[in-house]
Amino acid sequence: MDRIWSIYLSGEIHSDWREQLEKGAEQAALPLRFTGPVTDHATSDDCGAEILGPEEQDFWKDHKAAKLNAIRTRTLIADADVVVVRFGEKYKQWNAAFDAGYASALGKPLITLHAPELTHALKEVDGAALAVAEAPAQVVAILRYVIQGRLN
Amino acid sequence: MDRIWSIYLSGEIHSDWREQLEKGAEQAALPLRFTGPVTDHATSDDCGAEILGPEEQDFWKDHKAAKLNAIRTRTLIADADVVVVRFGEKYKQWNAAFDAGYASALGKPLITLHAPELTHALKEVDGAALAVAEAPAQVVAILRYVIQGRLN
Amino acid sequence: MDRIWSIYLSGEIHSDWREQLEKGAEQAALPLRFTGPVTDHATSDDCGAEILGPEEQDFWKDHKAAKLNAIRTRTLIADADVVVVRFGEKYKQWNAAFDAGYASALGKPLITLHAPELTHALKEVDGAALAVAEAPAQVVAILRYVIQGRLN
Amino acid sequence: MDRIWSIYLSGEIHSDWREQLEKGAEQAALPLRFTGPVTDHATSDDCGAEILGPEEQDFWKDHKAAKLNAIRTRTLIADADVVVVRFGEKYKQWNAAFDAGYASALGKPLITLHAPELTHALKEVDGAALAVAEAPAQVVAILRYVIQGRLN
Amino acid sequence: MDRIWSIYLSGEIHSDWREQLEKGAEQAALPLRFTGPVTDHATSDDCGAEILGPEEQDFWKDHKAAKLNAIRTRTLIADADVVVVRFGEKYKQWNAAFDAGYASALGKPLITLHAPELTHALKEVDGAALAVAEAPAQVVAILRYVIQGRLN
Amino acid sequence: MDRIWSIYLSGEIHSDWREQLEKGAEQAALPLRFTGPVTDHATSDDCGAEILGPEEQDFWKDHKAAKLNAIRTRTLIADADVVVVRFGEKYKQWNAAFDAGYASALGKPLITLHAPELTHALKEVDGAALAVAEAPAQVVAILRYVIQGRLN
Amino acid sequence: MDRIWSIYLSGEIHSDWREQLEKGAEQAALPLRFTGPVTDHATSDDCGAEILGPEEQDFWKDHKAAKLNAIRTRTLIADADVVVVRFGEKYKQWNAAFDAGYASALGKPLITLHAPELTHALKEVDGAALAVAEAPAQVVAILRYVIQGRLN
Amino acid sequence: MDRIWSIYLSGEIHSDWREQLEKGAEQAALPLRFTGPVTDHATSDDCGAEILGPEEQDFWKDHKAAKLNAIRTRTLIADADVVVVRFGEKYKQWNAAFDAGYASALGKPLITLHAPELTHALKEVDGAALAVAEAPAQVVAILRYVIQGRLN
Repeated sequence: MDRIWSIYLSGEIHSDWREQLEKGAEQAALPLRFTGPVTDHATSDDCGAEILGPEEQDFWKDHKAAKLNAIRTRTLIADADVVVVRFGEKYKQWNAAFDAGYASALGKPLITLHAPELTHALKEVDGAALAVAEAPAQVVAILRYVIQGRLN
Repeated sequence: MDRIWSIYLSGEIHSDWREQLEKGAEQAALPLRFTGPVTDHATSDDCGAEILGPEEQDFWKDHKAAKLNAIRTRTLIADADVVVVRFGEKYKQWNAAFDAGYASALGKPLITLHAPELTHALKEVDGAALAVAEAPAQVVAILRYVIQGRLN
Repeated sequence: MDRIWSIYLSGEIHSDWREQLEKGAEQAALPLRFTGPVTDHATSDDCGAEILGPEEQDFWKDHKAAKLNAIRTRTLIADADVVVVRFGEKYKQWNAAFDAGYASALGKPLITLHAPELTHALKEVDGAALAVAEAPAQVVAILRYVIQGRLN
Repeated sequence: MDRIWSIYLSGEIHSDWREQLEKGAEQAALPLRFTGPVTDHATSDDCGAEILGPEEQDFWKDHKAAKLNAIRTRTLIADADVVVVRFGEKYKQWNAAFDAGYASALGKPLITLHAPELTHALKEVDGAALAVAEAPAQVVAILRYVIQGRLN
Repeated sequence: MDRIWSIYLSGEIHSDWREQLEKGAEQAALPLRFTGPVTDHATSDDCGAEILGPEEQDFWKDHKAAKLNAIRTRTLIADADVVVVRFGEKYKQWNAAFDAGYASALGKPLITLHAPELTHALKEVDGAALAVAEAPAQVVAILRYVIQGRLN
Repeated sequence: MDRIWSIYLSGEIHSDWREQLEKGAEQAALPLRFTGPVTDHATSDDCGAEILGPEEQDFWKDHKAAKLNAIRTRTLIADADVVVVRFGEKYKQWNAAFDAGYASALGKPLITLHAPELTHALKEVDGAALAVAEAPAQVVAILRYVIQGRLN
Repeated sequence: MDRIWSIYLSGEIHSDWREQLEKGAEQAALPLRFTGPVTDHATSDDCGAEILGPEEQDFWKDHKAAKLNAIRTRTLIADADVVVVRFGEKYKQWNAAFDAGYASALGKPLITLHAPELTHALKEVDGAALAVAEAPAQVVAILRYVIQGRLN
Repeated sequence: MDRIWSIYLSGEIHSDWREQLEKGAEQAALPLRFTGPVTDHATSDDCGAEILGPEEQDFWKDHKAAKLNAIRTRTLIADADVVVVRFGEKYKQWNAAFDAGYASALGKPLITLHAPELTHALKEVDGAALAVAEAPAQVVAILRYVIQGRLN
C-alpha cells in the first residue's frame, strides 16, 4: 500500500491555483491528500458570528471567526507532510505568511509559490522554504519527484 | 535576583516604535532584555553578499541574506519569553507575519501591535495573540502588569 | 478516504449533552470519533477498589480510581484532535477544568461549553479556548464548519 | 552555588497561605524563588480593559484580562520546578484546576494543598499530584526534604 | 472501527503471565495488540553473536545482543498505549525496571504486576505507576475498564 | 494485522545492496516497507534545475537539488522505525553520514553497513549505531530477529 | 567562565562510592555539580509518613515516600548533563535501573558503574550506557576527559 | 549583561581553523563561548582503552572511545546556539557530516566551512546549512553580523 502524502495548501483564495495543482496531481496519479483552509471568503469571515452569535464590534466578530479557522488550520498543518504557501498579487495575505512561519517552526518542509516580482518582499519566507516555485505545475513536478523519484 | 524577561520585537523597521517601547520600559524600570532582527534595512539586505560573496541574481543575494538573518531571528525568538510583532502601514511585512506564526508554533506568548485599520487583514494573526495593542505604551503597560502585577 | 476527527468530550456527566452532540454529529454525517471519560459515576468511583482491592480510607480508594481513570483519559486526550469541555451548573467539576488545562498544555484545540452565567468564573479557561459555546448544537456546527467548511 | 528551585503557587487568593508558605521557607533558609499569578482580584479582573480599552460586554472584558494573565501564568509555570496548587473552601476555582492540568501535562511535579473535605471532589487532580498536603507547613517540609534531604 | 490499544508486556520471562493475560483479554474480546521483548532466553542472549559474529569476551557478546534487543523494545515501548511491567520472584530483572523508567519518562501509563512481598523493594517503581496489580486477571480487568468503562 | 515496520535505507547508490536487502526480506516474508533517497544519480543531481529552472552556478544548481531531496529524505527518515546506513568504498558519502547523524538525533535505531576496513574512519558513526553489519543478509537477519524474535 | 557540568549519581546508597567520586573530582578540580537522591535510607523511607501523616498500610507509606522522592529525583535527572548509575552487590536496586531507563529515555548520557560479575544481569542497561566503569576513579577520569580533553 | 552565544566547532582537526576563528572573534570582541570535540587525535582514539581498559580488537577499542567522545559532543552540540562544521581536504571526515546531521535534526543553525572544490560532494550538507563559508574570517563576520548587526 502506497504511503499517502498529506499536502496542506495555504494562501491565496482568489485564483484557481488549488484546482490546477489538484488536477495536475490527479493526472500524474500521485498518492496525495490535499488539505487547506476554508476558501470561501464570506464563510470564513462570518463563521464565528453565524455559529456563536453576532458581535457589535468587528474586532470580536473577526476574532471569533479566526479562532474557529485556527481549529482547522492548525490541526491540518500539524498533520501535513508538506506545506505549500501561495502568495498572490493582491491583499496583504498575512495569514499565508503566518502559516509559513507556523509550519516552519514545526519543521514541516515548506514550498512557496509566487511570481518573481514578490521575491524581495518574500525573502525571509523563501529563505525558510525548501523550494520556491512560480507555477502550480512545478509544485506537481516537485511532489512527483519527491514521492516517486521521477522527473517525468 | 529578579527574573529577566526576554522580549523579542519583530516587524516594522521604519518607525521608532522599538525606541518608544524600550524607553517606556526603562522609565518603568522593568527587568527586561529586548532583542529583535537587524533593523538597518540596507545591512539586512546586503549581509549575505557582503560576507559570503556577491551574486549575479537578486534571488540568491536575497537568499543568502535571509539565511544569515534567520540565524539571528530564530535563535532569539526561541530564546524569548514574549514576542511582540508590529505591523505598520507600509510594505507587505510578510516577515513580521512569518515571525508571528513561527513564535506561535513554539508556544510563545504573542502580542501584536498595529493600527485598528489593519484589524480585518490581521484577524488570523490577532487570533493567535494574547494581546492586541495599538500603541507601544500599551505594550509597556502589559509587560509591567505581567511581570509586576501592577496597573501603574 | 475521509480523515476521521477524534473529539474528546470532557466534563459534566449528569446531563445528556454528549448524546445531543453525538446525535447532531450523526445527523450531519460528520466523520467523527467521540471519546471521553467513563461517565457512569459509581463505576468511575469504585473501579480502583473493585479491581485492585478495597481500601479502608476513602482517600486511597479515590486515589486508586483516579489513576485508573487517568490511564483512559490521558491516552484519549493525547489522541484527540479537538477537546470539548462541558461545565454544568452543579458540583465543583475540577476534573473538567483539569482536563482543559491538560489539553491546553498539549496544544489541543479547546472548545468550552457552558451557560453564560459561568462566564466570569471560567474566564481563564475560556481564555485558553478557541471557541466558547452555550449549546451542543453549536459545537456540532463548529465541527461541521471546521471539517467541511460549511455553515449549514 | 546552590541551585535555586522555582516554585509556582497557584490557586486561592483570598487567604494568606502564600505568605505562610513563603515565611516558612524563609525561616528554613531554603533556596527558593516563589512565583504565581497576580493575586489582587480587582487588578486581575480589570487589567485587560484598563490597558487595552474598555469593553461593553463582560465576556470580552474577561477575555482580554484572562489572556494578559495567561502571558504571566504560562511563562512562570513553564519555568517552575514544582507547582503547588491550593484549593480553598469558596468559589469554583476552576483556574486552579486548570493550572494543575496544565502543569501536569508539562510533566511538572505537582503538590496539591487543600482541606480533607475536598478529597473526593479533587480525586482526579490529587491523582496527578506527587503530594497532597493540608497545611502550608507541610509544603515547606516537603520542599526542605526534596531540596536538602532533611526531615527537620 | 474500534481503536486498537497497544499494550507492551515487559519483564519476567520464566512464567506464563503473558499467556494468562492474553487469554484473559481474548475472552473479554478486548481490542488489544500485545507486544513485548523476545521472551526466549537463549535467543535473546545469543542474537548478537549469531547474527553479527562471535565475541571472545562475554561483555561484548552481551553488548551486541542488548543493542539488537533495544531496536525492538524501544520501538515497541514508544509505540505502546500502556506498558505493563511484571516483576517475578527470581533474578535481578533490572531490564524490567529499566523499561519501567524508560516508559515513565516517555509519559506512558505504567502498570506494575508483582507479589506483595516485593512492595518495599519496588516502591519507587510503583510510585511511578498508575496501577499496581498482583495478578494478570487484574490487569485484564483494568484494560477492560479503561477501554470499555465496564467492571465486568 | 501485523505491524508494518518502515525501514529507511540511506547511503551508497552505486551497488545493489538495497536490492539484496529487499529480496532477502521478501524471502523471509517480513512485514516491512522500505524507503530511501532517490537513487538515480543524475536525476538526484538535476531535479532542482529541471523543475525549478537552470542555474549558471553549480553551487545553486546543487543547492536547489539538495533541498528537493531533503523534502523526501527528512520526511521518510522521520517516518522510519529503523534507519540503515550503507557506506561503500568510493566517494565521500557525506550525505550518508549526515543522515546517520540526523536519524540519531531523532532517536531512531540506527544500523550501519560497511566493510571492516572502514571501521576506524566510521568509529563515531558506529558508536551511535545499535548494530554494525558487514552484509545485507545480516541486516535481514537483524530485522527478522527484531520483528519476529527468530534467529532463522 | 567555565561551564559547570551537572552530574546525577544514582543507585547504591550503602557504600562510599559517591564520596570517592566527589573527592576524585575535587582533586582534579573539575567544574562539576553533583546531585542525587536522598541517601539516608531511613529518611528516604519515612519522609512521606513523617511529613504528610502516618499510614496503616506499608504500601501507602511507601507510596507517599516514593512520590516525594520523585519530586527530587526527576527534577535533578532532567537537570543533569550526565547520569551515573551505580549497582552494588546487595539488594534488588530496582530504582537504580529505573533511573537508568528514565535518564536514557530523556537522552541523557549514561555511565554505569558496577563489578564485572554483574555484567550479564545488566546487559540491557549497559547496552544503553555510553560507558561501563568498574571503579569511581574511572568515572572521574571519564569526566575529566569529557570536560577537559585530557587523559591525566 | 550581554547574551553569550555558544558556538560549537565541529570537523577537521589537522589545521588551525579553530585558532583562526577564535582569534578573529577575540579581535572583534564578540560575546562568544567556543566548544568542540577533543582535537588531539591520539587522545581521542585512545581514551576508551586508557580509561576503561584495553581491548584486543580494534573495533571495540574504537567503540569505547567513540562513546566517551559522544558524551562530550552530544552535550555540547545540544548546548550550542550555532554549529560550525569544517570539512578539510583529507580523510573521510564522516564524524563531521554526522555532527552536521545531528545538529540539523536538533534545529541548530548550521554553518559549513570548506573549499569550493568540495561543493558537489557536500551538496546535501550545504543544503541544510544557513551559511556556506570558505574562510574562518567569513564565519567571524557572520557571527559579528548575527550578534551585533554590523558588517564591520
